[in-house]
Amino acid sequence: MNADPDTRARNRRIFRLAEKAGTPIDAVYISNHEPGDRNFYAVTGTNSHFLYSSAIVRRCGDATLVVSALEKPEAMSEGYTRFKPYASEREKETKISAALMRAKTIGINGKLLPYRDVELLKLSGFTVTDISDVLDDVRVYKTPQEMASLNEACRITSRVAELVPEMAKEGMTEIDLVAEMEYQMRGEGAEGFAFETLVAFGENSAKPHHNSGKRRLREGDLLLVDFGAEVGRMGADITRTYVAGHPKSWQRDLYAAVLDVQTESLDALRAGVNGKDIHDRAKSRLDEIGKKLGSETDGMNHGLGHSLGRFTHDGKRLSNIVYILPSGLVTTVEPGCYLQGKGGVRIEDDVIVTDDGCEILTNAPKESLIEISG
Amino acid sequence: MNADPDTRARNRRIFRLAEKAGTPIDAVYISNHEPGDRNFYAVTGTNSHFLYSSAIVRRCGDATLVVSALEKPEAMSEGYTRFKPYASEREKETKISAALMRAKTIGINGKLLPYRDVELLKLSGFTVTDISDVLDDVRVYKTPQEMASLNEACRITSRVAELVPEMAKEGMTEIDLVAEMEYQMRGEGAEGFAFETLVAFGENSAKPHHNSGKRRLREGDLLLVDFGAEVGRMGADITRTYVAGHPKSWQRDLYAAVLDVQTESLDALRAGVNGKDIHDRAKSRLDEIGKKLGSETDGMNHGLGHSLGRFTHDGKRLSNIVYILPSGLVTTVEPGCYLQGKGGVRIEDDVIVTDDGCEILTNAPKESLIEISG
Repeated sequence: MNADPDTRARNRRIFRLAEKAGTPIDAVYISNHEPGDRNFYAVTGTNSHFLYSSAIVRRCGDATLVVSALEKPEAMSEGYTRFKPYASEREKETKISAALMRAKTIGINGKLLPYRDVELLKLSGFTVTDISDVLDDVRVYKTPQEMASLNEACRITSRVAELVPEMAKEGMTEIDLVAEMEYQMRGEGAEGFAFETLVAFGENSAKPHHNSGKRRLREGDLLLVDFGAEVGRMGADITRTYVAGHPKSWQRDLYAAVLDVQTESLDALRAGVNGKDIHDRAKSRLDEIGKKLGSETDGMNHGLGHSLGRFTHDGKRLSNIVYILPSGLVTTVEPGCYLQGKGGVRIEDDVIVTDDGCEILTNAPKESLIEISG
Repeated sequence: MNADPDTRARNRRIFRLAEKAGTPIDAVYISNHEPGDRNFYAVTGTNSHFLYSSAIVRRCGDATLVVSALEKPEAMSEGYTRFKPYASEREKETKISAALMRAKTIGINGKLLPYRDVELLKLSGFTVTDISDVLDDVRVYKTPQEMASLNEACRITSRVAELVPEMAKEGMTEIDLVAEMEYQMRGEGAEGFAFETLVAFGENSAKPHHNSGKRRLREGDLLLVDFGAEVGRMGADITRTYVAGHPKSWQRDLYAAVLDVQTESLDALRAGVNGKDIHDRAKSRLDEIGKKLGSETDGMNHGLGHSLGRFTHDGKRLSNIVYILPSGLVTTVEPGCYLQGKGGVRIEDDVIVTDDGCEILTNAPKESLIEISG
């Protein structure tokens, strides 16, 4: 066995798109160095860890793995036949060169391939071309296997979001809740976590990139969770916001406004529209709400959504200058509004864009601001 | 506040070592792109996430952060004054160039800095020099704050290793045990996990890079766990092997042999010795044991140890051709012996090398093969 037929078909597309973009290539080289380029899993279709391994993709769509000898059992147990084990760095370089064969111009992921790897390729006489944009474009189209994994990751993530109001208790720390949520994700079948689980209480919910810590949950706090399970090396990404005890009126108003903007954004999504228009409308509405409920500097200070899959930020953003949405795009839709020093609300779902709308993959409840008791 | 004085002192060392290595530089550029270069935390001393941020280090040891505007609250709450928030990619590039000021030759981490970043630096007229080896050398010397974090990570990890025999039950899957262990690590104060928690039952324990899955624990299995907590962006790394029920004689013999080799290796460690000699002796003894208890191909198929800290594999290996151990090096010592198809034993501890020996940082019990009942 080699990469599955769907993966091979998509790999061939890399070559066609690269040619169309005016950067024709003879082969693609992906290095899964530590901490990793997840294009490796995209072009091989494998699920094993394969740290320090490389993948060489040929025009026919075949992907050859150059793997550490330690990983030979994994490669064999997956039934992968096109792999070359190496026992030393020197042997790795030789096997990579051999797998690249008569290729002259090598497409690379310029966003992640380290300088040193590029220098080695050049030293071996190859010419490199940065095709990271093509790789991002091609990953928009999910194979059925990727889509099945992503659906399962979204199911697990939604289920755990649904359990948060039962797990959260006044007096517990943000980190305590992270532990409970990750434990539940594992219990539901998560193979890992797409990114650092974020839990933010009270004023911390106004910081979109908060580092969860020892802040304890107190009555009256907003409680924001942003997390995702990983299955088959595909990750989900959801955000929900709750309140500890009875909401104050500004909390209720903030939640209602964000939910309304999310609903409007979801209604506007479909293949062929410009993502930037939807982002701009959401931002303008939420900046206004921020000003009304807080101060001049409050509102939505991030993009409305990003594509999703192998990477949590999979290369596309709704807030790009112009981004005409293709059918099949999986993206987050995550409006948020933040009142500095008081708290914020974000509601995030994962959706797949279709010709006449979008389909929501994460179905945890969000219809009203859920109150956490105890 | 800027980086702490210890971090600044170590940063100045980068410039001295680079000069000594014949690659003098005017500044260092580190990009914490997704999925990240942890040298970012080493040169800044910060603990916040700071995804997509960059650090520019100057000869005086100062580190300037170029951070997403989203991260401004984190930078401020850490009391970091030398930071420049950016709101767009274009602004990021401008601020990086400005922070590099009159520097001409920029030291980069060639092992991780992406091709695209290098091209941008070159386009802005800078010359780049790969100083990744110098960065690896300098990270050997831990600041007191790093050492305190690493000690705490080792304490948590040891404590959870001690609990594994109570947590493991016949019939549970590898993933079930991963969930319990990670939950316990969080409970003990882990801020994250240094790498994917590895649990291997029975024949899977013979695969050093096994991906934990749905294999259930059965009476008579060896049970191997390899994991580490993370605190202050510093990670621990421990391995313990247990047995479900009463051990068979080959399991007892294998365990005794690996433990004996670990003891011998630990006894041989001290500043000034060649790591390769210790690795070679361990490998030769365990390959022989493998042959005796198994077949020609069994034994130890990996290095005896790797340096530890910001990265799980922090740049140094005991099995390098020549590696004269410096005082203060934190390294794993992890002999293992694997009988393909039957099972393997690995015992791994984290130690700090001193002038007259080494000090063990992970103190979970290992004196005998612990039997798991139930």
